[in-house]
Amino acid sequence: MRLLCLNANTTPYVTDTVADAMRAALGPAADVVPCTPAFGPAIIKTRVDNAVAAHGVLDAAARHRDVDGVMLAVSFDTALDALREALSVPVVGMTEASVAMARMLGGRIGYVSMGRAVAPLYAETLTHCALERDLAGWESVEAPAAYRPGDKTAVDRLLAAAAGRLAEAGADVVVLVGAVLAGAAARVQAASAVPVIDGGAAGALTLRAMVDLAAPKPRVGRFALRPGGGLAGVSAALGALQPPDALQPPGALPPPDAP
Amino acid sequence: MRLLCLNANTTPYVTDTVADAMRAALGPAADVVPCTPAFGPAIIKTRVDNAVAAHGVLDAAARHRDVDGVMLAVSFDTALDALREALSVPVVGMTEASVAMARMLGGRIGYVSMGRAVAPLYAETLTHCALERDLAGWESVEAPAAYRPGDKTAVDRLLAAAAGRLAEAGADVVVLVGAVLAGAAARVQAASAVPVIDGGAAGALTLRAMVDLAAPKPRVGRFALRPGGGLAGVSAALGALQPPDALQPPGALPPPDAP
Amino acid sequence: MRLLCLNANTTPYVTDTVADAMRAALGPAADVVPCTPAFGPAIIKTRVDNAVAAHGVLDAAARHRDVDGVMLAVSFDTALDALREALSVPVVGMTEASVAMARMLGGRIGYVSMGRAVAPLYAETLTHCALERDLAGWESVEAPAAYRPGDKTAVDRLLAAAAGRLAEAGADVVVLVGAVLAGAAARVQAASAVPVIDGGAAGALTLRAMVDLAAPKPRVGRFALRPGGGLAGVSAALGALQPPDALQPPGALPPPDAP
Amino acid sequence: MRLLCLNANTTPYVTDTVADAMRAALGPAADVVPCTPAFGPAIIKTRVDNAVAAHGVLDAAARHRDVDGVMLAVSFDTALDALREALSVPVVGMTEASVAMARMLGGRIGYVSMGRAVAPLYAETLTHCALERDLAGWESVEAPAAYRPGDKTAVDRLLAAAAGRLAEAGADVVVLVGAVLAGAAARVQAASAVPVIDGGAAGALTLRAMVDLAAPKPRVGRFALRPGGGLAGVSAALGALQPPDALQPPGALPPPDAP
Amino acid sequence: MRLLCLNANTTPYVTDTVADAMRAALGPAADVVPCTPAFGPAIIKTRVDNAVAAHGVLDAAARHRDVDGVMLAVSFDTALDALREALSVPVVGMTEASVAMARMLGGRIGYVSMGRAVAPLYAETLTHCALERDLAGWESVEAPAAYRPGDKTAVDRLLAAAAGRLAEAGADVVVLVGAVLAGAAARVQAASAVPVIDGGAAGALTLRAMVDLAAPKPRVGRFALRPGGGLAGVSAALGALQPPDALQPPGALPPPDAP
Amino acid sequence: MRLLCLNANTTPYVTDTVADAMRAALGPAADVVPCTPAFGPAIIKTRVDNAVAAHGVLDAAARHRDVDGVMLAVSFDTALDALREALSVPVVGMTEASVAMARMLGGRIGYVSMGRAVAPLYAETLTHCALERDLAGWESVEAPAAYRPGDKTAVDRLLAAAAGRLAEAGADVVVLVGAVLAGAAARVQAASAVPVIDGGAAGALTLRAMVDLAAPKPRVGRFALRPGGGLAGVSAALGALQPPDALQPPGALPPPDAP
Repeated sequence: MRLLCLNANTTPYVTDTVADAMRAALGPAADVVPCTPAFGPAIIKTRVDNAVAAHGVLDAAARHRDVDGVMLAVSFDTALDALREALSVPVVGMTEASVAMARMLGGRIGYVSMGRAVAPLYAETLTHCALERDLAGWESVEAPAAYRPGDKTAVDRLLAAAAGRLAEAGADVVVLVGAVLAGAAARVQAASAVPVIDGGAAGALTLRAMVDLAAPKPRVGRFALRPGGGLAGVSAALGALQPPDALQPPGALPPPDAP
Repeated sequence: MRLLCLNANTTPYVTDTVADAMRAALGPAADVVPCTPAFGPAIIKTRVDNAVAAHGVLDAAARHRDVDGVMLAVSFDTALDALREALSVPVVGMTEASVAMARMLGGRIGYVSMGRAVAPLYAETLTHCALERDLAGWESVEAPAAYRPGDKTAVDRLLAAAAGRLAEAGADVVVLVGAVLAGAAARVQAASAVPVIDGGAAGALTLRAMVDLAAPKPRVGRFALRPGGGLAGVSAALGALQPPDALQPPGALPPPDAP
Repeated sequence: MRLLCLNANTTPYVTDTVADAMRAALGPAADVVPCTPAFGPAIIKTRVDNAVAAHGVLDAAARHRDVDGVMLAVSFDTALDALREALSVPVVGMTEASVAMARMLGGRIGYVSMGRAVAPLYAETLTHCALERDLAGWESVEAPAAYRPGDKTAVDRLLAAAAGRLAEAGADVVVLVGAVLAGAAARVQAASAVPVIDGGAAGALTLRAMVDLAAPKPRVGRFALRPGGGLAGVSAALGALQPPDALQPPGALPPPDAP
Repeated sequence: MRLLCLNANTTPYVTDTVADAMRAALGPAADVVPCTPAFGPAIIKTRVDNAVAAHGVLDAAARHRDVDGVMLAVSFDTALDALREALSVPVVGMTEASVAMARMLGGRIGYVSMGRAVAPLYAETLTHCALERDLAGWESVEAPAAYRPGDKTAVDRLLAAAAGRLAEAGADVVVLVGAVLAGAAARVQAASAVPVIDGGAAGALTLRAMVDLAAPKPRVGRFALRPGGGLAGVSAALGALQPPDALQPPGALPPPDAP
Repeated sequence: MRLLCLNANTTPYVTDTVADAMRAALGPAADVVPCTPAFGPAIIKTRVDNAVAAHGVLDAAARHRDVDGVMLAVSFDTALDALREALSVPVVGMTEASVAMARMLGGRIGYVSMGRAVAPLYAETLTHCALERDLAGWESVEAPAAYRPGDKTAVDRLLAAAAGRLAEAGADVVVLVGAVLAGAAARVQAASAVPVIDGGAAGALTLRAMVDLAAPKPRVGRFALRPGGGLAGVSAALGALQPPDALQPPGALPPPDAP
Repeated sequence: MRLLCLNANTTPYVTDTVADAMRAALGPAADVVPCTPAFGPAIIKTRVDNAVAAHGVLDAAARHRDVDGVMLAVSFDTALDALREALSVPVVGMTEASVAMARMLGGRIGYVSMGRAVAPLYAETLTHCALERDLAGWESVEAPAAYRPGDKTAVDRLLAAAAGRLAEAGADVVVLVGAVLAGAAARVQAASAVPVIDGGAAGALTLRAMVDLAAPKPRVGRFALRPGGGLAGVSAALGALQPPDALQPPGALPPPDAP
């Protein structure tokens, strides 16, 4: 099973951190391919960064088509729906996977993310997770050391403290949100009275399940492959992802989502 | 990995059908243990049936504690939260697992269930799935042959027709709801323009992921183990599940869920 | 008017407490019949307890069919929908009745329940009350003395203090949640700046109204009497409640509840 | 028990129709006092009519203070919250009472109202009923004969047909919406497969329950009596309802309803 | 462009305050016509006041038909829908306009209103604004000096402090709610780290846009002109607004709003 | 007043169409500057197109900073929040403006968009409009002639027919969704029984109101200017929009949006 570890930032250390966590969760049976975009933000800090990162991650995915599944190694699940539309293999966002697994433990979920400045973006980018259903609380930690190699003791202490506050506030499970936190749940679990989940293991295990489920690409509907609108000024690989000359079969699409 | 295939009906054919689908999805690495309750309804048809089945499934689970995870082999996810509270291993409902995987394919979900008479019960029992988020439609089929061994051609034809109607009505993925439909998705997939999922494969693959995630039992909160209220007139095994003399650690529980 | 006071716990003192409150509210015109299940939890403290209690209360109801209405004397409204489906007389939950009357006073509702450990269960069991519509707050009191005969002064002091905190937090009316609190509203009302309601009076008065309304049992739909799925291992009385051989009239049921 | 039957239209025939239905439901123990406003619309047909009717019904209520409870005999529940704020006795809207009782029968509710032109107003005026929770459908009938004395056979036939359509569309109970339909449920019940409720009986029985509950007027909060803003150009009775010179006790009101 | 500045209180100082703010926002191109009702509350303080004010504002509007648009100069948007139904020119509520403009700045909205006693009314009267979508907080200030001519330094200091607290609590924009606060935003803006909006400028600018849009009066639907129900005891002008003898064209109205 | 007409497609005819409609609505007082991105899709047809278009529109905006306001001339309101975060002048999406103005006419809204294939994207991109609040229906028309210069008679006939169907289905106002439909509302209005709005006039009039409101750029919160995450591989203009070296003032951002 060949799985793409697809970052949306351009910082290779983050990509490697997620890929390592995926390998730790899946063992040798899976071949994890790290992939860092050719352009975009070093780390997503603003909506502008996230918008450019969406372009970057699509470009990178278009260059790596020979995989059985894609794990989106960015906690904002950036460009998730676009990837699902354009690719024929399963695509799993690391945060959506964490939330889905947390829900199967029961109760309310607490979240810990990196950097107070970026925290409000999650409410806008994770609407597909319907966080309001069972939200117990949200904590931000400031831990720049997480983004560079080296000792994580101080980072883990901050994470554990945040998890503890969330458990006291009513969280029955804690999700660590942040690509660079992949692998951290195992390190801080012992200090927490409730389960702690990160997107590295959760995303990898969920993606393996999706690949094994082997659901086919839909031939109709919102996520069928569709002809594009004629992209100009993009890479050849990306331009080839949704060729504009294809014909949309008549009647193949549903009516718009009347809420 | 030893997994309990825990039915809530008392019809062994249904239990076996689900267990076979789990084995087909997981291969030899998993040891699937079929389990049918000692009392309750042959098939859940009413709210009274479902209430008694909840007791029956808890009784059965209490007698089979030597497993690594529990797959609830009943499409109503009967007693799911009670099992999660009382057990220390992962518990996955076959319908919640189907819905979670369907959501990771994108778009709106159509449902096919067995028997028009029982269809309204799903709205009451699956509230944890928040079906309204992305519901495309619901179809019922009348196929008593599904409940007995033998040829399934006629059953599959009804299922495929229902899936086709749902895809036309805007479903991007179809979930087959019904323990006895475990394994049917693979049979009807070829006839469908959109992916078809059943709770046998989806539940088994999701449970494997949950077991591999190895999240610990919470020590506090809504799903920590709690002392029971003194059960009388139940089996010794069930009575031992939540001994009433245990002490609740002070401050261990969150405030009630203020919506 | 002969009314069943149907407890779901097996503690007769609780049953008697509710029955007394019903008699106080209705006077001699109503004949209140106390009924305690033959098995189940002494007091519901966990989801497992509540699941077994649902079986117990259905069994008890099946043994007492000669009444004009049923008041469910348990604050979780345990098995309420199953009773409504199986019986032909009105069934009223003591908490749903309290909430309905509180809403007719206007404003936001504060709740006081017994025991912090059990408080989270209410959010799961009272979904039919849509508590989030007008929730002002929720308080838990620890008052074991409420469960045994004798002086209630200390209990009432705790209840009054909790009601006071809720009024300060924006509650316009306070509902006492707990079968054993039937009758307590009248005792603590004088100390409260806002109305206080308990399920004894509210449930009894509402049940009387429902019996006098004399709405017939529906012949079709979600609450029509339906054939059961073949219960085994239950009491003869319960087995007779929904005989499995009955025929469902064609077209008699609605489509599933598409949310 | 002295109960005001308070119409918001100025058509006495409607007032009398509701009062008769109340008497039929309550028997001789209740003294029903019919009350028709001195000004306003003959029948509410527009938002302007309803706005003026709110003034009219408050004026009428201010002139009839010697009652134990008020039944608002208008299906829009016009000025319901204002009456609850200004009066110290229970006030029950005939539609809210119908909905509350229908919910205690279980399932989904269908509605039949008078006149297609006025139907959209109900969505705006009945927000306190949260109709969307369990709405099965809405039917309008055109039956001017309902508004004048005489034979109701044709009216009842239309109502029964509408109720039948709603039951087929998934309604488990039907509510007749319209003051002038008070008493009609009993006439059309025999023709319906599901229970039919009108606001005459439902309102009267609910008001009796509220009066017997004897909840006191709140001294603080959203429905405490408050000083008015200095009404000019209104009747002396209405002007006296909320004298402007009263002092609001400090801290007596909650913060605004943050949703 | 001739615009009615239509107050619902009977205090001319409030009307003039709003009219001045409108003129400041629109300059000489617009002719602002102040209008104070002939009866009703000096200042709306209760639900009864607001109900009578609805009648008063409709009466006043009926007397001033020669305008191109109506700005409802009362922060409760009193009788807004009735005015829209009865008039053929645009009608804009000052609070709905403020909310709409605030939303186009992005983020969450904090509100400051006048008088803690009246704050809960906003939740009931502003349902058309769907405040819960993006509510950051609500503050009340007690500033009687706002209602009389003279120095506003103390009032502005209270407003600025409230705005500051809201910004700290997560508001990205602050809306001043209160007709008498028209013009205050410009005075307190310098002291605020986030934009501050009041209904004087926001309402005037929005109304100008609506008038320039020149959308015609709908000929069918919920806001088409409809015959009234026969108003008696009202002014001749108001009685003429919706003559009862008009004929409703068949099929002209939609089905009721099924939520 | 200098206003940017900022398209997200790369088809200049669309840009010009919107700019013409803006000029028609605003007259000579406004200087409308058409702007077409340097790269991206000719017409947005897929999620991939829209993601690339977000990058393209940000790049284009970064090159045109000398304006008083930005009208986003694309019906998906592509990159709206990112533009609001990065720019200091008002930014208005043409669809959000249409919806806001439609809501001030009252009732339910019907939508007409271009191309059935693209219709489902609107539900994902217009979440900030909360369309479900008052949705009456959605119609798609297939009218390729709209995208090229020349006679629009056939296009307008399709639009008018769709608007007519929506009015019959309960729409009280119709919004034309599609940048290329700017100006069409005026052409089809005469054929419609309800008001018809397009994003050209609505967007221009709303933007003028926002510019005149003159709300300052927030200094704190979700839409304050923030340092970027270090964009690489983008244009110099875009890279300069959010320089990464800026310092975030401590405590300047709110907690994440806890729903």
